[in-house]
Formats: sequence, structure tokens, C-alpha cells
Amino acid sequence: MSTSLDERNGGAARTTRLAKWAIDLQYEGIPKEVVERTKELFLDWVGCAIAGRHHPAVSAIAKYAVQMGPTTGKSEFIDGSLGLLTSPAFAALVNGAASHVVEQDDLHNRSMMHPATVIFPAALAVAQDIQANGKDFIAACVVGYEVACRVGEYLGRNHYEMFHSTATGGVVGVAAAVSHLLRHNMSQMLSAIGTAGTQAAGLWQFLIDASHSKQVHTGKACFDGIFAAYVAKHNLLGPKDILEGPRGMGNALGRGSTSPEAIDQSLGIDFAVLQSSFKWHASCRHTHPSVDALLSLMQKHALKFDDIESVVARTYQAAINVLGLSGRGETVHQSKFTMGFVLAVAAKYGQAMITDFTEEALRDPALRNFQDRVTMKYDAHIDSQFPQKWQGTVEVTCNSGKQISESVEYLKGDPQLPLTRLELEAKTRALFDYGGYDDTKNIERVIQRVWQLEDEVDLLGFSFE
Amino acid sequence: MSTSLDERNGGAARTTRLAKWAIDLQYEGIPKEVVERTKELFLDWVGCAIAGRHHPAVSAIAKYAVQMGPTTGKSEFIDGSLGLLTSPAFAALVNGAASHVVEQDDLHNRSMMHPATVIFPAALAVAQDIQANGKDFIAACVVGYEVACRVGEYLGRNHYEMFHSTATGGVVGVAAAVSHLLRHNMSQMLSAIGTAGTQAAGLWQFLIDASHSKQVHTGKACFDGIFAAYVAKHNLLGPKDILEGPRGMGNALGRGSTSPEAIDQSLGIDFAVLQSSFKWHASCRHTHPSVDALLSLMQKHALKFDDIESVVARTYQAAINVLGLSGRGETVHQSKFTMGFVLAVAAKYGQAMITDFTEEALRDPALRNFQDRVTMKYDAHIDSQFPQKWQGTVEVTCNSGKQISESVEYLKGDPQLPLTRLELEAKTRALFDYGGYDDTKNIERVIQRVWQLEDEVDLLGFSFE
Repeated sequence: MSTSLDERNGGAARTTRLAKWAIDLQYEGIPKEVVERTKELFLDWVGCAIAGRHHPAVSAIAKYAVQMGPTTGKSEFIDGSLGLLTSPAFAALVNGAASHVVEQDDLHNRSMMHPATVIFPAALAVAQDIQANGKDFIAACVVGYEVACRVGEYLGRNHYEMFHSTATGGVVGVAAAVSHLLRHNMSQMLSAIGTAGTQAAGLWQFLIDASHSKQVHTGKACFDGIFAAYVAKHNLLGPKDILEGPRGMGNALGRGSTSPEAIDQSLGIDFAVLQSSFKWHASCRHTHPSVDALLSLMQKHALKFDDIESVVARTYQAAINVLGLSGRGETVHQSKFTMGFVLAVAAKYGQAMITDFTEEALRDPALRNFQDRVTMKYDAHIDSQFPQKWQGTVEVTCNSGKQISESVEYLKGDPQLPLTRLELEAKTRALFDYGGYDDTKNIERVIQRVWQLEDEVDLLGFSFE
Repeated sequence: MSTSLDERNGGAARTTRLAKWAIDLQYEGIPKEVVERTKELFLDWVGCAIAGRHHPAVSAIAKYAVQMGPTTGKSEFIDGSLGLLTSPAFAALVNGAASHVVEQDDLHNRSMMHPATVIFPAALAVAQDIQANGKDFIAACVVGYEVACRVGEYLGRNHYEMFHSTATGGVVGVAAAVSHLLRHNMSQMLSAIGTAGTQAAGLWQFLIDASHSKQVHTGKACFDGIFAAYVAKHNLLGPKDILEGPRGMGNALGRGSTSPEAIDQSLGIDFAVLQSSFKWHASCRHTHPSVDALLSLMQKHALKFDDIESVVARTYQAAINVLGLSGRGETVHQSKFTMGFVLAVAAKYGQAMITDFTEEALRDPALRNFQDRVTMKYDAHIDSQFPQKWQGTVEVTCNSGKQISESVEYLKGDPQLPLTRLELEAKTRALFDYGGYDDTKNIERVIQRVWQLEDEVDLLGFSFE
């Protein structure tokens, strides 16, 4: 029986090719731009993890880690205030939860995944444990991004309706990244992928009552992927065709449609790392096209906050639907989902960073007054392009009576429009600030260290009190 | 949005009732026969865990536990040869894997689950850690069986086609059992159930290449259920309607059909513990109706092995399909799936225990000769009753020329035909023997201890070198 079922499904050929690529990748063979982008994504991840480290879900998981895990080891909790070292599985569990709190982590559009929040914490914790160097770490992360995002894209949109793909694709990517660090042979790599895949989990049900599973999913994807890789090293056998097999992830979790070609096409040419977007503004992503257009317009025409009489934000229907739910934005969280308030913040501060959305800002009459002069308008052309392109147009009427407009085709932070390193450093500082860390000297040291990551002899010292 | 989606799905009413029942159950309110059966199931589990402790998958997971977990604590690896104590999560991880190796663990028919292999290792490890007494342990296990089997039955047959229900229902049952031990309030119990459910995983893909996920699934269900219960104690919020919610287990994993009434009907009246079967013979379950019929016939007519000329085993189609795959039974494993060989063993030894299937037995000409005189025959009436009843009929021709037949309606070990304690003790001794443990005095001590479990002040000492 096993042979015919296996053959009917291509005999695991695609998964085997992906696993072979994951084993064979060497730092020296990775294009320079992929290496540089990986370092940028990693710095972005460090900031997100610090910013989220005090969330109640993270604290609960950290307590569990102290109860159930060792309190000595070589792997660091990124929240140094815990004052502990531990084993890689528990460091990654807690750090993976922390980095998925503030909604500022990266996004791989095609797979609808946030790869940083699963790949980096797992690879970092294991690299610390085995004293891997910067080059090994970067190569493992490139592998992890690739495998995670390809599995996420393979599982596709129907899967994403029910499952948190960051976790279900992520656990497989983690297994591959860690297996690369542990220098698995082919059988062990396939076993790690198989064992991770048969443990893939994470349902969207938590969104309905705003509970804490989001952080559980990413932390556990780290833990479970590390588990899969280590037991594979100890020769625990995993199913060889976990993606496409008759009782594998695609058939069980794909809900009727998958994209098998995503598993192995253009391997080594089309890098997931290069297809990942940075999130620049701290507001809902549906406000970003309008924010980018407004900031661009203000810069081009040297306009100030007080020069603006009113703004019409032309956008797609999905944005109007989502942004219509948060009313006037009475809480900090809601205010990030309120187009008028977000544009007011951007216009006043020239940015909309995580530290710009505060209780004080909510009570600022100037911001509230500006907000009242913003309207959203449906734009049929923009809507027809969504979601392939997240375009935006703003029409501004100035106090002088002058009317001007500006459009953007891509979001700032998208692969087509990456952040500059200066912008990324500014975002990082804001995230550290938000996370209550104020040793500015050390922040600058960390930033410079990441820019030279390939020269590092180890990955120790990514822990902040 | 959340309200209407919630209401459309009954507002988590069934899950809330199940959680409330799980919190409220006290040892004193459990019917005597449920307590006694729980102890029997626990002894059966101890034997299965010892018998499986040296399997390569278990060894790999034990190595991981030593690498990633603490090597001090109050929870015991049932394999005392590791010489270590650990935290409850890791003890349960390894012990849960060990008890699902030899295919001798219990079966809850309606849910198609093996509850013992997930509920007992988790409850035992936590009971050891918090020094719960025998009564608390028994009550927690009754809760765990109930919740696990109800979730498994709710998810149903379509789910079972793809998912290893022992793990997916099991993780929720573990969370409930552990939450009972930790004395969760209602909000914490619901959170534990929710967090466990959003982590439910385990695919049958591993069957296709005979890999080791079976033990991963049960060990990880223990680990993940313990995780869910402990983080809930630390006030991590889980989704409240993880079973029936629009993006919950039923909709995501139920594959189009679920049985919602199974969640909460007849709670406290219909106990899963009483609906669980013991596996008596060590062979494939499809051989059991014929083995039971043959042994009954031989006893009634005082027949011996050498008195039998030939046997016709009348059975249902599924048995013929499965048992047709193992040829003549060239390996010990295959021999348990070969009707002729299994009946030969049963006829010769008066039983078919785990220690009766050996390399020596494979080479025994008397057994092989008997095997050649056994045929299987399709029986339309028996087939029409399957799988509600696993009936069997044997027609025996004696050397004397006499023809006799015998039928059985239930399997030995089924709820309708439970094992006697003497039989269970014999099975336990065989399982210890198979697991390489020969301190017979200690085995007898353990057996007696389990029969008095409700009087025990703690659960320490279930570890065997």
C-alpha cells in the first residue's frame, strides 16, 4: 500500500529537493544582497522582541519556561531582566512569543506569513547553544525563511482561512534552519521536516475573543521545530512526504487547494528573504498606502501639519471595511486602526512609529481636530489592483486653497521599496524605547554588531535587561 | 463581529458545560466502578510504558529531554535506567511516547482513541510534582479520559481519516486533567482547553513509511497539554470556544462532519473510563474475535493443540483485507498480523501474550504446521455487524473427525467482557518481562499498590530500572 500511495503523490520528490537544497546551502553561495537583507530582518526582529517582552502572554510563557525548563544553559532570554540562561528550546519558546506582540514584524506577502518571529528566535537560541558563528547563523536563517515561506505558500489561502500560517509553515522552517545548524544529513533533514510537519498547529479561533494564542503559536512553532530537528539528530524517523503525502499537511490542512510548485520552484534564485516586507508605520497596514502618499506629498510640497485644511484618502474596499470598525479610536490600539488619527499623527510627527501612539496623543486636540478633516473614499482603480498592489492616493486641500494629490504604488518597506538602514535603525530605537530599554550606548553597539554579523564568532549577548 | 460569530455557534455553551463538569468533579462523587476501572487502566498503562521503554523513538525523545529539560525535579521517567528526575513536562513527554509502542494500550471505541497513553503519563508526572495523592490523581484521570474521548468523538470519523485522534483529542484531555490537579478556576480551565485545542496536531502520514511519529504524537500531546494547563494558571488566555467556534477544531480539523452532542451529553452518567477496552491478546485486534472463539471452544470441549486438524475463521471483510497484507508472517511484527500463526500460538499456549511472539516461535515447525491448516472465510452476518460488534466464529475439525464451532459477540477486554484482575496482573507481568524488567517482587508490590491507589499519599515510585 505504502508504495502506491507514495507514487501517486510524486514520491516526495519536491520535499526531497527542498531538503537537499536546505542541506547544501553554504554561506559562501548566498548572494550578497540576501545576506544583507537577512541582517536587516534580524535587527528588525530584535527590536520587535524587545518591544513585546512585557506582554502578559509572554510573561506567562516565561514563567512556564522557568518551571519546566533548566535555569542554566547557553541560550539567552532576550528579556535579560529574567536574569537567566536556559536551553535553546525554552529560550526560543519565550523569545518567539515576545517578537509577535507589537505587530511590527516582517511579512512575506505570498505566503501571508511573518517568518522573522519563528525563524530568528529558534536559530539564535540554537546558535548560542552550539556556539555557531555569524556566517552559520545567517545561512541557517536563509534556509529557515525559504522552507517556512514555501510551506506557507504551498498550503495557501484556504489553509490561511483557518490556520495561522506563521506557525504551521513556521514550524517546518524552524526544523530546517535548526537542522542546518546541526549539520543534518539528508535522512535527518527529511525526518526533521516530517516530524515538524506532523506537529503543525495554530487556529485563528483566538481572534474571536482576543485571547493570547498568537504568541503561543509562534513560541510553540519554535519549540516544536527545535524538537523535530534534535530528535532527528538522534535518528527518530519522520514521515518523508509530510507536505504532499496522502495523509500529509496538504491533504489534511490545505482544505482543498494547495500550490505544490511553490515547494521547489526557483530554489536558490527566488529568495524568501528578499520577498519579505518590513513594516514601517506602527499603524494598521491598511493605513500605510495613505500615510506614505501623504508624507510624500508633504515632503514634495514642503507642507507642514498646520498648512493642511483637509485630506481625502482614496483607497480599496477592504481598507474601508477594516478601518470602519474602530470608531473614533478611543484606545491606543484602536487609534492605530483609525485612518484620520493615523494621518494626523503622520502629518504632525513626519512618521507614525510605535512611540507616537500614546495616551497623550489620544488627548491632543490638534490631532483630533486634524482627524475630523480626513475622509476615506472608495477608489475603483486602486481596488482593482488589490491585494497584488497596496496602492494609495491622497487629495489634500491646503489652507491656501490649493489642491494637490499624490499616489504611491508600493508600501514603504515592501521589497520594491526597502527601508534604508537609517530608517531601520530609527525603527529599532523606537522599539527598544517602547520595550522599556534605555541603554542607548548598548543599542548602538547592537546595531553596529548586526551590520557586521557575518564577522561575529558567536551570537551571545542578545539579551537586554 | 466576535459576538455574532460566537452566537451563531452556540456561544461555547457545550464546551463551557464540559469545563464546568471537569472543575466540579470530586473523587467522592465518582462511582465506585469508575474508580476501580481507572486503577485497572492505570496498571495496564504502567505495563505498556515499561514494555515500550527501549524503542528507538523513545530513546531519541529521552535524549532530547535530557538535552533540553532539567535533570533534577520531582517527576520520574518510568524508565528508571535513565537514573534521572525531571520536570513534569519532560517526564510526561518521554513516558507518553513509551506507552504507545507495543500496541497493547487501551482503546475507547466510540472516539477511536487510546486515552491511557496520553492521560496517565501527564497526570502522573504532574501529580508527582505537586505531591497530589491517589484520590486526586484518580479524579484527574477520570476528567482527562472524559474530555479527551468526548473531543475525539466530537471530531469523529472524517477527522480520524487524517488525524491521530489519540493526540488531537488527547492534548485537550491532558489539559483538563492537569488543570483539575492544579485546581483551576473556570476561566483558567476554559483557557487551558482553548490553548490545548489550538495546538492539536498529529497526522497519519507516518504510517506510509513506518516512521516514528506515533510516539511523537502521544508524547507531545502530553507535553502540550501540560503547557496549556500551566500557562493558563499564569493567566494566559485561550480561546473560549475552541471546539465549536467558527475557526475552532471542528471547522478546521473536522473535515465536514462533527458530533457536537458528544461534547456534553450524559456527563457524569456515561463515563469514558467504563467505555474503554483492554487489549488482551498481543496480536492485531482483527484476529481477536477468532482467538477468543477458538480458546472458548477448546476450553468447552477440552481440546488440546494436537487434537485440532483444521480451523476455519469466519470473519468480516476488513479483517481479511488487513490480515492479508502480512504474508506468512516472517517477522515478529508481521506474525501478529497473520491469522493462522496467531491461532496456532493461542492454541498451543492457551494465550497470545506479548512474550509468546518470539523469534523462536517463528521457527517452531509445530506452529507453522498448524498455521497452514487455518483458513479465513468471509461471513456476511458478521460483516453486517462490524464495527459496532467485532464478532467471530471458528469452525474446527478435530483429528477425530468431529466438527464443532463457536462464536463470540464481544472481545475479551471489551467493556461488556472486562478482564479479571488476575488476567490483568498476568498481562502486566508479561509486559514487564518484555520490557526487560525482572524484579518480580517489585512488580507484585506495584500491582498491589495500584489496587490500593486511592489510599496512597503520593504517586512517587513509578520508575523501574
